[in-house]
Amino acid sequence: MKITQLGEFGLIDLIHKRVISKDKRVVVNLGDDGAVIKPYSGRLLILTTDTLVEGIHFDLNYCSFEEVGWKAMVANLSDIAAMGGLPRYALVTVGLPKSIQIEDVLSIYKGASRIGREHDCKIIGGDTILVPDNLFVSIALLGEVEKKFLLTRSGAKRGDLICVTGKLGEAQAGLEFLKKYGRQKLSWVRKHLRPSPRIREARILVSNLKINSMIDISDGLSSELFHLSETNKLGVIIYENKITTSTLSLKLAPLIHRAQL
Amino acid sequence: MKITQLGEFGLIDLIHKRVISKDKRVVVNLGDDGAVIKPYSGRLLILTTDTLVEGIHFDLNYCSFEEVGWKAMVANLSDIAAMGGLPRYALVTVGLPKSIQIEDVLSIYKGASRIGREHDCKIIGGDTILVPDNLFVSIALLGEVEKKFLLTRSGAKRGDLICVTGKLGEAQAGLEFLKKYGRQKLSWVRKHLRPSPRIREARILVSNLKINSMIDISDGLSSELFHLSETNKLGVIIYENKITTSTLSLKLAPLIHRAQL
Repeated sequence: MKITQLGEFGLIDLIHKRVISKDKRVVVNLGDDGAVIKPYSGRLLILTTDTLVEGIHFDLNYCSFEEVGWKAMVANLSDIAAMGGLPRYALVTVGLPKSIQIEDVLSIYKGASRIGREHDCKIIGGDTILVPDNLFVSIALLGEVEKKFLLTRSGAKRGDLICVTGKLGEAQAGLEFLKKYGRQKLSWVRKHLRPSPRIREARILVSNLKINSMIDISDGLSSELFHLSETNKLGVIIYENKITTSTLSLKLAPLIHRAQL
Repeated sequence: MKITQLGEFGLIDLIHKRVISKDKRVVVNLGDDGAVIKPYSGRLLILTTDTLVEGIHFDLNYCSFEEVGWKAMVANLSDIAAMGGLPRYALVTVGLPKSIQIEDVLSIYKGASRIGREHDCKIIGGDTILVPDNLFVSIALLGEVEKKFLLTRSGAKRGDLICVTGKLGEAQAGLEFLKKYGRQKLSWVRKHLRPSPRIREARILVSNLKINSMIDISDGLSSELFHLSETNKLGVIIYENKITTSTLSLKLAPLIHRAQL
């Protein structure tokens, strides 16, 4: 069924039924002018937002609606992770073309809700609007962090080691692979479609090591090193042989490259 | 200059310079992965979000970029007002078509920032993204409310009086007038283009009267009465002669109607 047949309020009711969850700190949940929560005393609040737009950030030819919701949520969860925090509550806004099916809208919320809950982050509000053309998903997220664990992009010191979590290049390889060969059930394709936010890794790091600065590198190593360098007015030295490039990406690179020729 | 010439980071720098403002509670302001603030102890947090899309919610033929930013912010401020709260911090996301001029992007932020500041609400983050077609502005807002002042859509009791702030119909008349006669500097046109959120009125009401329920009626009296009725499982009786319809709207109605024939 198309959303225009059901109407906005009917759609909102369905979304609420799918994503609503009990939470002692939520005083007013989905369905009012706003959501109301009790703050956790002694912690700072983190606010972040990220938006994915069809034709710019994703292509429905090789990305499911559920994966779009998942990725939009992960973009936000990663921002919270980069500050050493814990994600808590999300507002999920969807811009919907008239032709979209109700099940597809619910899949977007399902994807966002699933990966959110894995990291204790619940959807407590949002907005559903019609758009003339391209679908978009915009999420705003409230997180928390103990003052002692808060890290930002600034704070890096001369002599700091630069480290990354995980192997680099698989998500990009997954995207290139999808573009050339269409949808495949492969691990590096999954890294692109269902990325995993570094919430737990970041919490382990900030609570066990003395770290001066952190940043989310989903835009790629080089651009984020540039940000760190600019913000901290420090140079960076990169040893090519020490970059934790995924061996899979290295194997895939010539394959993708051949297909492009 | 077009945004594609300046690049995303150049644009973000310009936006930061225009909207950043000092605030003792803001620990991390614009420019990091997220914004960080100190919560005000003893108050509940309100989270809300609203989005305006070109071609659906506004028409750039009779709406300036500054007014688009203003209206998007007011949609959010009104939600906070409807709950008896105080707006505090906003994340402003803009979806920008390639052809947009930098000055126009800055005007959107100017409009949002101006009306926000009038109500003590500061922009502390957001996102700038390219979109294939229509411009959009999506704002997420964090507000606060003392528990004793929090009001929701539910809570209405049998026998309650239903009251509105202000005169109804002028914003709608302004929109109709703009559609027929193009841009005009008239008070009812201003009501449509630069609406005023009811923050102060709501605070006076909740701190001086015993009110059971409140709702934002920017979608119109009838649809919001329907929500109140549904939520509270109560009927409503409306006395036509007691609706505070704007005399201006009544005068304008036949004029607009004639033009439509």
